[in-house]
Amino acid sequence: MRKLRVALAQINSTVGDLDGNTRLIKSRIKQARKAGADLVAFPELAVTGSPPEDLLFKPKFIADTRQAIAELARECADLMAVVGYVEQGSASKHPVFASSGMCADRCELYNAAAILADRRRVATYCKQLLPNYGVFDEGRYFHPGKSLPLITFRGVTLGVNICEDIWSPEGSARVQTMAGADVIVNISASPFHIAKSRSRERMLAAWARENGVIVTDTNMVGGQDELIFDGNSVIVDQNGEVMARAKAFEEDLIVADLNVDGIVRGRVAPGLNTRRTRPGPESIERIKVRSASPVRTRVQIIPRVELVLSELEEVYKGLVLGVRDYVSKNGFNKAVIGLSGGVDSALTAVIAADALGAANVHGLFMPSPYTSQESAEDVAELSRCLSIECRTIAITPVVEVYGRSLGPIFEGRAADTTEENLQARIRGNILMAVSNKFGHLVLTTGNKSEMSVGYATLYGDMAGGVAVLKDVPKTMVYELANLRNRQGAMAVIPKRILDRPPTAELKPNQKDEDSLPPYPVLDPILKAYVEEDRSVEEIVALGFARDTVAHVVGLVDRSEYKRRQAPVGIKITHRGLGKDRRMPITNGYRSS
Amino acid sequence: MRKLRVALAQINSTVGDLDGNTRLIKSRIKQARKAGADLVAFPELAVTGSPPEDLLFKPKFIADTRQAIAELARECADLMAVVGYVEQGSASKHPVFASSGMCADRCELYNAAAILADRRRVATYCKQLLPNYGVFDEGRYFHPGKSLPLITFRGVTLGVNICEDIWSPEGSARVQTMAGADVIVNISASPFHIAKSRSRERMLAAWARENGVIVTDTNMVGGQDELIFDGNSVIVDQNGEVMARAKAFEEDLIVADLNVDGIVRGRVAPGLNTRRTRPGPESIERIKVRSASPVRTRVQIIPRVELVLSELEEVYKGLVLGVRDYVSKNGFNKAVIGLSGGVDSALTAVIAADALGAANVHGLFMPSPYTSQESAEDVAELSRCLSIECRTIAITPVVEVYGRSLGPIFEGRAADTTEENLQARIRGNILMAVSNKFGHLVLTTGNKSEMSVGYATLYGDMAGGVAVLKDVPKTMVYELANLRNRQGAMAVIPKRILDRPPTAELKPNQKDEDSLPPYPVLDPILKAYVEEDRSVEEIVALGFARDTVAHVVGLVDRSEYKRRQAPVGIKITHRGLGKDRRMPITNGYRSS
Repeated sequence: MRKLRVALAQINSTVGDLDGNTRLIKSRIKQARKAGADLVAFPELAVTGSPPEDLLFKPKFIADTRQAIAELARECADLMAVVGYVEQGSASKHPVFASSGMCADRCELYNAAAILADRRRVATYCKQLLPNYGVFDEGRYFHPGKSLPLITFRGVTLGVNICEDIWSPEGSARVQTMAGADVIVNISASPFHIAKSRSRERMLAAWARENGVIVTDTNMVGGQDELIFDGNSVIVDQNGEVMARAKAFEEDLIVADLNVDGIVRGRVAPGLNTRRTRPGPESIERIKVRSASPVRTRVQIIPRVELVLSELEEVYKGLVLGVRDYVSKNGFNKAVIGLSGGVDSALTAVIAADALGAANVHGLFMPSPYTSQESAEDVAELSRCLSIECRTIAITPVVEVYGRSLGPIFEGRAADTTEENLQARIRGNILMAVSNKFGHLVLTTGNKSEMSVGYATLYGDMAGGVAVLKDVPKTMVYELANLRNRQGAMAVIPKRILDRPPTAELKPNQKDEDSLPPYPVLDPILKAYVEEDRSVEEIVALGFARDTVAHVVGLVDRSEYKRRQAPVGIKITHRGLGKDRRMPITNGYRSS
Repeated sequence: MRKLRVALAQINSTVGDLDGNTRLIKSRIKQARKAGADLVAFPELAVTGSPPEDLLFKPKFIADTRQAIAELARECADLMAVVGYVEQGSASKHPVFASSGMCADRCELYNAAAILADRRRVATYCKQLLPNYGVFDEGRYFHPGKSLPLITFRGVTLGVNICEDIWSPEGSARVQTMAGADVIVNISASPFHIAKSRSRERMLAAWARENGVIVTDTNMVGGQDELIFDGNSVIVDQNGEVMARAKAFEEDLIVADLNVDGIVRGRVAPGLNTRRTRPGPESIERIKVRSASPVRTRVQIIPRVELVLSELEEVYKGLVLGVRDYVSKNGFNKAVIGLSGGVDSALTAVIAADALGAANVHGLFMPSPYTSQESAEDVAELSRCLSIECRTIAITPVVEVYGRSLGPIFEGRAADTTEENLQARIRGNILMAVSNKFGHLVLTTGNKSEMSVGYATLYGDMAGGVAVLKDVPKTMVYELANLRNRQGAMAVIPKRILDRPPTAELKPNQKDEDSLPPYPVLDPILKAYVEEDRSVEEIVALGFARDTVAHVVGLVDRSEYKRRQAPVGIKITHRGLGKDRRMPITNGYRSS
């Protein structure tokens, strides 16, 4: 019986922390050995963290990364490890670089998987399909790989490939399978958005079934600036059944025994023979790896299959992980949040408390004359429910002194949004002063609906290190708040916060709906325009009033400059407002 | 005699303004006709402006762009026009897009040149080499073209291609030449950095000489967010001599008669036969264009060859153009600048006055108790020399009231940078209040040296719409100030501003050199680290003290979060701090 025990080490690497990531990988190799694994697979770019971005242009960084792989190889005497890293090729011959004399020592780079066994790197696979859309810029850094190692180890033939390579029906996973792979070992760093893990798993299952092989996918987990990686690593058998599934949004290690006797060699699945195999210069490179036999005192194992979370639970867990990792990986442990009495700051505080612990979350309530009594009460109640500290600094004296200072210049001019923005900026200053003095990170509280239409003050409520809800539409803010209130013994967000109509409280009796359509109307318009690139005409055809659509689209177009200076926010939708969406500020296009 | 009169229309398109750009192109077609031209060539992406970024994902935007080309074709009865635009191909079959159901109607796009004659689009060339490095993201948007039209028009054979296509010795320009082109018509949108125009022209001259053909390059001119396009369009004859050169940093139209009798068909230059011609599936498509004869009342012309500016003059003109276009293309006409008495704000004000007119520049002097008498005098003198309005708002009362408000929370804590940042943020608030009230754009004044080491306050002196000197190292700030003082009848920047040691004046007797190495030491370290990706070891080897280098590198690494929220700044070096440099904020790499 040809059988291989495989471990998927779903780790949370930190971008750039080569030493820390190497230590983490070593510890998981040990853990896999303890579990009797023949093979342990780590995520794409496990050594560097993902995405390393322009760190990749530092030759020293690449040298250090390769050094880490050499060090890890020495840990692999009795088992095999597949580890994502960056490999370099020959010196780049890009004509522009060459002619300008710049980057003379920049080499061609590959997004690679090191196959470590027998205390050495026995083979290297280089990613062939390099995503360069959405949040991805892999074409900026990497060259596509060409060779296709096919590894035979302990009687089982493995085709190693990376993330996108298995998304194409004609990609390298396909070529490896046709050449005789029993198991496809895919490693990935696949950023989260709503429902992504589901579609990834569905694709992997369909792929395994159609091609009649076992597929393993070790996915990265953790937060990196605006991205979160959701984990959800899986092993799917040749019938497309999930044999093992790791946790979502947590580190994990899952182990399964793969019986490859059921894999038919030289398989031709129905219809496959009519497909053109992928053309290209890649060549199969057959590598047989001998290594010391493992200690064979293995007990039988039943692979663990974690439950799938609901879409909303995934978003909530993702936001918690995103906040925790942004704060901790940047060397902070406490956060400060301006609490207004509204639902956005309430949800932000709850997420922060879940991420960092209530003792590490500091609220700041900064009332003005326009702040209602209800807001003060609701902030107090929220802080009590959450057990977070909250202090109060009234901004009225500061507002007044600014008014006197600006008086001579503003003479004869009516009050307008200038004065509203000033209040928001005073609050921003106070939060930043607390941040500077005590070393707490400021979390901003604006949601995606506001950020899309520019209903936010630059340097005011937009001031902070990370914008927790930047990619969460207002209607989903309520859904998440309700979800969280249903969990645990009691509701943490007071009911009145969820029931009161949204208001910025920057002038008397202000309501969001004075300036914006109701959120249940606004949010689908924004989704159609911002996420789906629909024209005004098309959005009207979905059933919205032309005036409303034109108004919203104009607001989005005119507020690009604000978003450009916004803090990073955690991406949870298919298109966030960060690297996903690169609009010019200077833009004469009038959408119609 | 085979002769063609060619006009290069170096225009300043506005990104997204399809109507405006189309009108502009029409007016230049008329102008070229008046000059008796057979052919008029416009820049790359002339219709859309460059770079259009994610506007390209809107199907309506692509449809509108193609509509504009159809409209322009009707203007081309008696002459030929080559116009940069965006063409679409078949529906995209990207597996990830397809599987997620997103972007279902997104088509493959091409960065294209329409060849218009006989009142129709007679051919289309699609760019083959798509830059995806530095500030470029063309791999995100475009597919590489495959076909190679070779146009014969009025007895002359033309090979049209786009920007990067001529930078590679084996690119499509080469294939077209080998297939018999007399003239290579390259159109480009080549972003400026120091010395770029020189190296571009040198490359074009070498290319023409080596390949024995005439080369024309119509380059874009104008500012777009952080980019400036420098113009400097040229016509180079088959001996590599510049026949015509357009202005730098201004719109222009240059005309020359190309005599192609001197072009040897079936040419083999020395050594060329040993080169492998570029492999690939592209096929030469020979197109013969008939069109109505032009009105042949042409007088002889002597092509104009503009003088080449010095590198420093180029930078100065580039900054002026960048400010003017950012302000005007975003619908502003006035700017407001915080004047401190230092050289950065002085130079910023001078550039703004040159860009917008002195009457459109408003200075604001915001002294604190740490502001010296010299600063007040120098601001007054600068304003007088420049003839700009300057008003004064003392920030002391605001500082005091913040102090009282924060007192209870800060109790028992010593003063530190918190209080310095607060002063900067109060100034930022006042500038933004003036901006909001009067509709003036705030120009920020920080230089590249400060922005690199984080010697700037987020939401304070970093608050504004465009950071004029963001890519200008401090030592170059002085060079530019001196350059500008030598121009014109009298110095506009008072000598004392240039002589006083730099200071932020945020605490008593503060000098920049208290926290930073002297700028003549700092700037080369920053260039080596930020622009050239050198390691600490390598920078030490250049002759700098290890402690100093480690200190500077640490400051750069730790201030990434500030730069991420900075306003756009005008790129003038080989690597700016914007789209050129994409570093993770969360980053555990410790450079050594």
